[in-house]
Amino acid sequence: MNPTTLEAALAVLRERVAPLAAETVPLGAAYGRVLAAPVVSTVFVPPFAKAMVDGYACRAEDTFGAAPFSPRELRVAFEVMPGAVSGRALASGEAARIMTGAPMPEGADGVVMLEHAALEGSAIRLVQALPPGKNVAARGEDVAAGDVVAAAGRALRPEDVGLLAAVGARAVSAHRIPSLVVFSSGDELLDAVSEEAPRAGAIFDANGPMLEALARREGALVRRGGILRDERATVRAALAAGSEATRGADVTVTSGAASKGKEDWMPEVVSELGALWVHGVSIRPAHPIGFGRIGERLHFLLPGNPVAAWIGFRYFVRPALRLLSGLAPDEAFRPERTRSALLARKIPSVIGRTDFARVRFTEDGRVEPLRTGGAGMLTTVTRADGVVVVPRELEGLEEGAAVEVDLL
Amino acid sequence: MNPTTLEAALAVLRERVAPLAAETVPLGAAYGRVLAAPVVSTVFVPPFAKAMVDGYACRAEDTFGAAPFSPRELRVAFEVMPGAVSGRALASGEAARIMTGAPMPEGADGVVMLEHAALEGSAIRLVQALPPGKNVAARGEDVAAGDVVAAAGRALRPEDVGLLAAVGARAVSAHRIPSLVVFSSGDELLDAVSEEAPRAGAIFDANGPMLEALARREGALVRRGGILRDERATVRAALAAGSEATRGADVTVTSGAASKGKEDWMPEVVSELGALWVHGVSIRPAHPIGFGRIGERLHFLLPGNPVAAWIGFRYFVRPALRLLSGLAPDEAFRPERTRSALLARKIPSVIGRTDFARVRFTEDGRVEPLRTGGAGMLTTVTRADGVVVVPRELEGLEEGAAVEVDLL
Repeated sequence: MNPTTLEAALAVLRERVAPLAAETVPLGAAYGRVLAAPVVSTVFVPPFAKAMVDGYACRAEDTFGAAPFSPRELRVAFEVMPGAVSGRALASGEAARIMTGAPMPEGADGVVMLEHAALEGSAIRLVQALPPGKNVAARGEDVAAGDVVAAAGRALRPEDVGLLAAVGARAVSAHRIPSLVVFSSGDELLDAVSEEAPRAGAIFDANGPMLEALARREGALVRRGGILRDERATVRAALAAGSEATRGADVTVTSGAASKGKEDWMPEVVSELGALWVHGVSIRPAHPIGFGRIGERLHFLLPGNPVAAWIGFRYFVRPALRLLSGLAPDEAFRPERTRSALLARKIPSVIGRTDFARVRFTEDGRVEPLRTGGAGMLTTVTRADGVVVVPRELEGLEEGAAVEVDLL
Repeated sequence: MNPTTLEAALAVLRERVAPLAAETVPLGAAYGRVLAAPVVSTVFVPPFAKAMVDGYACRAEDTFGAAPFSPRELRVAFEVMPGAVSGRALASGEAARIMTGAPMPEGADGVVMLEHAALEGSAIRLVQALPPGKNVAARGEDVAAGDVVAAAGRALRPEDVGLLAAVGARAVSAHRIPSLVVFSSGDELLDAVSEEAPRAGAIFDANGPMLEALARREGALVRRGGILRDERATVRAALAAGSEATRGADVTVTSGAASKGKEDWMPEVVSELGALWVHGVSIRPAHPIGFGRIGERLHFLLPGNPVAAWIGFRYFVRPALRLLSGLAPDEAFRPERTRSALLARKIPSVIGRTDFARVRFTEDGRVEPLRTGGAGMLTTVTRADGVVVVPRELEGLEEGAAVEVDLL
């Protein structure tokens, strides 16, 4: 194991992980998907000039000069309802009762709000001139035919889905959602999800359920691989390209057996079955992390210690899932939410190693590191508010240093 | 319609919306759920003192005084593997080969790393004293029996799921996930999702698909209500307690027909079927918004303009869904992500009204408002990076003002 720097390891991911193929996704399922092709509108939104308020459609010029001492009267000639097009044009001296959202009748270029027009018999009386275009949404004001309403590479937000619906897009071309299988490795592990009975010397597997939930948060399709016993043949059979457990998966993740101890089969098995691109990264925790390829599938070897597995997911597996989903590299590697803060207490580290320190906010809005070390202590993550990265050029971060917190 | 202030309207939600009932949720489905009861560990994590590295378990006192010029020799008496408990205690002068994660044998209180011990025949030679406890995770170091590992009201994060698995929690008590039905209202609307054919005077419904996606993002169970025609009887039948369309729903949302125009049936129908708690809020956009109760169900009347519907969801429906899910009020009403910034351009408003201005970041990191008004223009949302709230005490916000941006 010849440890790489964090930057070099992430550069390998960035270069070698490409978006999954595009597929057609119906509009009702498009939320969260990343577009493989831009969506170009074929229509105008709105498709016609429409009233923005309930009131009377008029010709603005008919109202010019209207004032309390010289009101203008317009005859209410007809009514226009939403969803119907008026067959009749508005003549000079006429007004049409109109509802919000209804198409403006031909000839009309403004709407007087209901409360600003006094209805007397079949006429309205106006005491104020109406500027042309008032209370009217112009045809194509929001979107013109030919406009790109969502660019390729965009992760569709709910409001994008609204806009796609507005232009009548029935389906979009989006990258496939990555599917992922999570395995835990170790003879000492008990499966809490399948309610395995406790036994002496054994511990409940925290990593499997945690990694599955982490992948779900990224929108991946998740399958349980369960627990692998510490036997070379078992591990090999489970991870082989085309194995039943991994069939159809774009990504597999194992936690445990990742280092170079007596029963750490993973690096060897991955090398044999495919290619181990990186093994060992000068970071803390999670330095035995590795990743490579088995068939067409990406494989990640995460350490068995839960905090290390968690860090490995956050800084390696998550960006890989985002690249597969079709996000641009800068976006794929960007932390979800960050906040600037000052350090309430020093974080020690060593030059040449990148440290991921779990921190929490103090009452006065600064951040302090939680107990470092203890890669087995998941409570240092559940109690944390975020992570501060100590870059490898530094021996640590001093009290009072300005840091960027990667928020949980 | 006698408009309330934003603060008064939200106070009504806060007071009247209570968490949904608790149910038992298996661990594998617990991610994202809000705990109705705390989870108390019945076990220690780790359940026994365990080795944190591969190496040799020793009695630390046997190594005291070890130095390059006076090495200590220990006989390697047996081996301990993960998942197995050693039946044998470590005697003085002995060491045991041990693997990461294996239980410490009785009598041993430290582990020498493999690379720090020279194996010669069946003995190891140490040239440095081992501090007691070195490379050992103490029993219960992470969690002690009786510890609360997750408090009631906590929205379970992936790492919480890991910790719950670690303590062998097979299921948790969590609040029900709110289920929601979304209707759009208007004769002018076409359904893009069901691929309705265009017709003159009609527009595609943007709100339904958008509101469905917004609710999905909050983790709600979403059902399509589809488009309601502008007929009193139709609206009434769809929204009545126990109607087929709304059966089992905790929340219904309609967009359109919310104001007080000729065919704005919603306020009247909701009043008749249940209670309209609030109708009309002095905000912009979305001032015709309302909400109340029909049977046991919450009902929201959102305006038909897409931007107004979007604002109504974000500042009214979202916190209500979060309250129903079991989050504490402060958390339910808290924006998801905010960032402080300076205004690059003035945002005008009027005293007495709270404005929600869509903004985007400029190249130099300040924020500028997108075209205000145009409540129909969904592109002012899809192009936005966030929302700045102009409080009702102010006539607007000046260029250079420090603002908190509610990020999209």
